Amino acid sequence: MEHELKEIIKKCDTAIKEEDFDTLMNYYTEDAILVVKPGRIARGKNEIKKAFIEISKYFNNSIVPAQGEMIILEAGDTALVLSQTLLDADKEDSEFSMERKATYVFKKNSNAEWLCAIDNSYGTDLLSN
Amino acid sequence: MEHELKEIIKKCDTAIKEEDFDTLMNYYTEDAILVVKPGRIARGKNEIKKAFIEISKYFNNSIVPAQGEMIILEAGDTALVLSQTLLDADKEDSEFSMERKATYVFKKNSNAEWLCAIDNSYGTDLLSN
Repeated sequence: MEHELKEIIKKCDTAIKEEDFDTLMNYYTEDAILVVKPGRIARGKNEIKKAFIEISKYFNNSIVPAQGEMIILEAGDTALVLSQTLLDADKEDSEFSMERKATYVFKKNSNAEWLCAIDNSYGTDLLSN
Repeated sequence: MEHELKEIIKKCDTAIKEEDFDTLMNYYTEDAILVVKPGRIARGKNEIKKAFIEISKYFNNSIVPAQGEMIILEAGDTALVLSQTLLDADKEDSEFSMERKATYVFKKNSNAEWLCAIDNSYGTDLLSN
């Protein structure tokens, strides 16, 4: 059986593909952050939802995210997911990398549901050196 | 003023250099994990302390960790630290990289103290692709 986090991330990818951002927001904590692009962070569900609408538009509403190799480092109610994230879209001139080594931090809430607290698809590439 | 997490990580680096592992353990959660090396994880303070003793010995008790560029992604009581981690040691033939792009996950406890939950100095290099 796959790790439940793998299933959740798959559901998030489907929601992004279908532009169902209300469903997507169910998988984020209230005070989650999303690294929209290097140097720009969206804070809280409202800003994150708006950022995803913008990102979808940027990619001509054709974005299809998928995960390749994934490593889940779990410590009690906290997990760090390292994931090869692949973005496909009908856009030839994206200024952003379409293949990333992402870092996602998830937290288990009191209902034992995993929610994303930190969504950083750029991983350690945010470091300049 | 520096971010308090930067100060805490500096204190951890000093404790590692001085091999003061009891002090070091004060900065970890009870169920923290440490990626000792790719494929090997230490779970809980006891195992983590033992691993640090082993690591120090491997590096001829001369290890000096330091952090270069650091990015702190904070979301409420959870933070993901991306850090250029530099290891110096009197050992010429280490099989491990001495310059890493580390990923550390910290959690704030009920006393508002940041504790390390996931210590992965290898960052996304754990992914093989």
